[in-house]
Amino acid sequence: MRDVYVAGVGTTRFGRQPQRSPRELAEAATREALLDAGTPAREIEALWLANATSGLGSGQLAVLGQMVTRGLGVEGIPVVRVENACASGSTAMREAYLAVAHGDVDVAVAVGTESLTGWSTAAMTEIMARASDAELEAPLGLTFPGVFGMIARRHAELYGTTPAQLAAVAVKAHRNGALNPIAQFDAPIEIEDVLGARRVASPLGLLDCCPISDGGAAVVLSAQRPAGAPRVAASALSSGRFRDDSTMTEFTATQLAARRCYELAGIEPADVDVAEVHDCFTIAEVIHGEDLGFCPRGEGGAFVESGATAIGGAVAVNPSGGLKARGHPVGATGVAQVVELATQLRGEAGERQVDGPEVALAHTLGGFVHGDAAACAVHVLVRD
Amino acid sequence: MRDVYVAGVGTTRFGRQPQRSPRELAEAATREALLDAGTPAREIEALWLANATSGLGSGQLAVLGQMVTRGLGVEGIPVVRVENACASGSTAMREAYLAVAHGDVDVAVAVGTESLTGWSTAAMTEIMARASDAELEAPLGLTFPGVFGMIARRHAELYGTTPAQLAAVAVKAHRNGALNPIAQFDAPIEIEDVLGARRVASPLGLLDCCPISDGGAAVVLSAQRPAGAPRVAASALSSGRFRDDSTMTEFTATQLAARRCYELAGIEPADVDVAEVHDCFTIAEVIHGEDLGFCPRGEGGAFVESGATAIGGAVAVNPSGGLKARGHPVGATGVAQVVELATQLRGEAGERQVDGPEVALAHTLGGFVHGDAAACAVHVLVRD
Repeated sequence: MRDVYVAGVGTTRFGRQPQRSPRELAEAATREALLDAGTPAREIEALWLANATSGLGSGQLAVLGQMVTRGLGVEGIPVVRVENACASGSTAMREAYLAVAHGDVDVAVAVGTESLTGWSTAAMTEIMARASDAELEAPLGLTFPGVFGMIARRHAELYGTTPAQLAAVAVKAHRNGALNPIAQFDAPIEIEDVLGARRVASPLGLLDCCPISDGGAAVVLSAQRPAGAPRVAASALSSGRFRDDSTMTEFTATQLAARRCYELAGIEPADVDVAEVHDCFTIAEVIHGEDLGFCPRGEGGAFVESGATAIGGAVAVNPSGGLKARGHPVGATGVAQVVELATQLRGEAGERQVDGPEVALAHTLGGFVHGDAAACAVHVLVRD
Repeated sequence: MRDVYVAGVGTTRFGRQPQRSPRELAEAATREALLDAGTPAREIEALWLANATSGLGSGQLAVLGQMVTRGLGVEGIPVVRVENACASGSTAMREAYLAVAHGDVDVAVAVGTESLTGWSTAAMTEIMARASDAELEAPLGLTFPGVFGMIARRHAELYGTTPAQLAAVAVKAHRNGALNPIAQFDAPIEIEDVLGARRVASPLGLLDCCPISDGGAAVVLSAQRPAGAPRVAASALSSGRFRDDSTMTEFTATQLAARRCYELAGIEPADVDVAEVHDCFTIAEVIHGEDLGFCPRGEGGAFVESGATAIGGAVAVNPSGGLKARGHPVGATGVAQVVELATQLRGEAGERQVDGPEVALAHTLGGFVHGDAAACAVHVLVRD
């Protein structure tokens, strides 16, 4: 396998913009990434597009990726859409990375896109529930806020995790997001705001949940290194264990993917300077800190509350604002993480810049099936 | 790249079976393929699942592949869903092939599945139209029967292709399908039946169109060769050219993918003994014969009418019955082609066995966007 570099990154604004189609969002992000890389569109040799929902309603059911390459005037290349629930974007990143690493192509694009705000919150909650077992779990009413509410209760029972610790995740996310020009939410919030918000699935309230978002994000991966471009040091994709005796307070899919990436990159969890993790709900970020080895099992809540994951802490987690404040346009999320981490490693993150990061980690979960995450993708990027 | 073998194949019956979910169809096909390969499920190291529509309605929106691995008791492995319209199955085949060829894994599964008969023909026609430009072409009423009706008219105008030549494609398909135990249609038809059928999009009538189908198909790909297993000699995936001046009577996506495969496999079109091609409409098979180089441009109609593509002809095309008679459960189709070709190369195709084939070619199209196929995947399998 040869080295692969994140040659360019691009992203639209995240948030409510239902007038822009998934195709348009994807094309805009890709154009920006190409411009950033200094790569003409005609040099793209393959493209993977991530999208979960555009076939619903009267949208582009199929060949959305080809609609993007057509818009860019790119002809004849392999184009594939991938879906892995909320890990779709990082799955596209992985497929594109492997194609360049193995020498199938020299330049590949991974682009993610999603338009969700055209749906009501109730409809979207029902739609997303079909990333669990749609024949068994979803019809029983197992929505994702419900799943993570149960997880939060169990984590509290086992480890004493408090609502204030969960709230600290949201406060950090909004503080970082307010420094990110593309973020959906641009205002800081306080612990009291989170604790006092309307309950959604107790103990989780409205401000413990990531929003519904529209957006697109793209990266250009290349076997050639433009000056200052980060290197992809590891990529792993795992599914879960789906055991009926799952405690639901750890995700084996994360543990497997992270362990593989640490091996491939030759690093320890303590080497990670900055991470973008899948904070779909505040409790999720608490658990990811444990599963990724940033803190001991059960101490994820205290770890966040201590400030260790703030910009300037031991490991800056979600400096972009994360799913919680940057927003969560499903297919775009995993790619947006790589956009943020590449920007951080290049030292171009402006007000939210982490001090001199050298090792960065991206982490997404996709779906939740019978007690475990259905998918987890982890990537490690380095500045070397 | 190392050699990759089709170690095992499996398929459900194709046809109307709306009581079986896409998950169930995929799992049944995968179990059969594993049994055929003599491979325990625990040895699967990665799985790609192809499906285009299961997220519509209240189906499994996401992580359908993990629902299959969970059913098989397989834990932790990378699982990805791919979609490329009607080329989804062969796209899954390609991704799984590359993973084994590059040494990422030793054993991978490609499985395709689709449930379509729960929809009315009118609804399905509208849904499938969203594999064109869903913002521009589909709202104008450009359905796939309409597209291929226009293509047939143009081909007739340019080359004199007759309705009887088109009908010969359907007659051959049904004759072959009647010999295939899993085919949707089990009765031969006559030229007069095709010419006398209700018109759908003139000159195409009902019997010029492939049916709406439910079904699943799976292959186990391995770096180890079980006795008699065919080798994958080439794989290519292309998108189209999307030119406004397209004649619509040739698919550059096919030409690009086929040329690449002939180069990779070191063969000429005349070396192909048996092929499964994307006969979504009779005119499509006529054009594929030309694009794949089986006959000169414009002579595809006469080529089929001559019997050259029958079992026993110069190149047996769609001995399975093809999309037209075996059926077309979208995500499953490209995988089912490989199932048929591996069966033919192993000499196990029973009454529809081609005489001693050594080189086999699978071809699918996906979508149709601005005058060209959005995607085309070609694979070459050999017995050596």
